[in-house]
Amino acid sequence: MNPITSQQLLDAQNWRYATKNFDPTRPIPDETWAALEQTLVLTPSSFGLQPYRFLVIDNKELRQKLLPHAWNQRQVVDAARFVVFAARTDVTAQEIDAYVQLVATTRDVSVDSLAGLRGMMAGMLLAEATKSFVPHWTARQAYIALGNLLTAAALLGVDASPMEGFVPAEFDRVLGLPAQGLTAVVCCALGYRAAGDKYATAPKVRFPVNELVNHV
Amino acid sequence: MNPITSQQLLDAQNWRYATKNFDPTRPIPDETWAALEQTLVLTPSSFGLQPYRFLVIDNKELRQKLLPHAWNQRQVVDAARFVVFAARTDVTAQEIDAYVQLVATTRDVSVDSLAGLRGMMAGMLLAEATKSFVPHWTARQAYIALGNLLTAAALLGVDASPMEGFVPAEFDRVLGLPAQGLTAVVCCALGYRAAGDKYATAPKVRFPVNELVNHV
Repeated sequence: MNPITSQQLLDAQNWRYATKNFDPTRPIPDETWAALEQTLVLTPSSFGLQPYRFLVIDNKELRQKLLPHAWNQRQVVDAARFVVFAARTDVTAQEIDAYVQLVATTRDVSVDSLAGLRGMMAGMLLAEATKSFVPHWTARQAYIALGNLLTAAALLGVDASPMEGFVPAEFDRVLGLPAQGLTAVVCCALGYRAAGDKYATAPKVRFPVNELVNHV
Repeated sequence: MNPITSQQLLDAQNWRYATKNFDPTRPIPDETWAALEQTLVLTPSSFGLQPYRFLVIDNKELRQKLLPHAWNQRQVVDAARFVVFAARTDVTAQEIDAYVQLVATTRDVSVDSLAGLRGMMAGMLLAEATKSFVPHWTARQAYIALGNLLTAAALLGVDASPMEGFVPAEFDRVLGLPAQGLTAVVCCALGYRAAGDKYATAPKVRFPVNELVNHV
C-alpha cells in the first residue's frame, strides 16, 4: 500500500463541501463510480454484518417522485448519482445465519467454529431487552458507510451532498423498502458542482480543533 | 485539488482491516496524527452543528481504567492512539446559539440573517415530539466522523480498529462525560499492526456488490 500525504488528505477534506448545485450534464465516469460502489461494499461494520443496502436511484422518474419528499432539494434530480442508505429495521436469525455462512465460505472455516461469533450477534441483536436498539444500531452502521463514501468521493474529486432532509416514511413507501425489512436513514447525492455554486467558496464553519478534540 | 486514482483508493480500502494486535512500541508521527485530528474536525455533520467531542486518551492509567470495560481488548492500551467518540445526549438552545454565532463570525454575516437556519435546528432538536430522537441523531453524526477517520487513516497507511465492544455507562463514568452532556458512542484505536496479526491476512468478508448495491 502506497499511502497518500497528509497534505493530499487535507486538501481533499477542505475541497469538499455539501454541494447544493450540481452540474446536471456531467456524469461520473464509470470506473470512478465502480470504485465508489466498491468503497461502500468495503465499509467496515460491527461484527461485519453489513445490515444495510445501498440503493442507487438511476430511474429519473423515480427521482422525480422522491423530490417532493426531500423538500424539493434539486440535488435529488440534478446530481449524477443519488444513493439512498437503507438500514435493516430488524435483524433476524436467518440474516445472522446467512452472514455466518458467508464468513465460513470466505475464510474456509466450519460454521461450527463460528459458534462464538454467532452467539455474540444473537445475544445482542435477537434478545428482547436490546431489540428496540437494533434499528438505531443498523442506522449507525449505515452512517459509517456515509462517512467512508464522502471521504472517498472527495479524494477522487467527486462532489457530494449528504442529505438528512427528507421524509423517511415517504421514501420508504416510494421505494418499497418496508417489504424488504429496510428503511431509508440518509441519502447522498454525488456528481460535480455547478459553476457558481456560492456554497463552494463559503468558509467552512467548524469549532476549533482544541474544542472538538480533547486530550485527556 | 489533485485527486488520487481509483486504484489508490481501493488499495487502501483493501489494505485496512479491524486491527486486533497493535505494535505497542510504534507511535504515529505527529504530522500524520495532526492531519487525522483535522480530519475529525472537518467531518460534515447535519446542519453543521458538530454535536460531539473526540476524546484522545493519552493518559496510560486512564486507558488501563477503561480496559476492563472494553472486554479487555488489548487495542485499548496497545494502540498508539485511542479515541472515544462522545456524542451530545441533548442539544440545548444555548448550543444552537453558539453555533449560529460561529457561522455568523466565520462567514461575516449577521446573526439575524441566520434566523431560518436557527429555526430549523430548534424545530428539530428542541421540540418535545422529537427530543427522544436527539441522542440517536447525535450518535449518527459521530459515526460519520468514524467513517471519515477510518478511510483517512487507511489512506495515510495508519491502522485502525473501530470498537463498539465496550460498556458506554462505564466509559462515561470513568471519563466524566455525563457532566459535559456527552456519552461515549463508539471508539477507535489507531496505530500500526503488530507483525503476525492473523487478521491482517484473513480474506475480507463482504456480501457481493450486486447484493449490497441495488440499482433501481
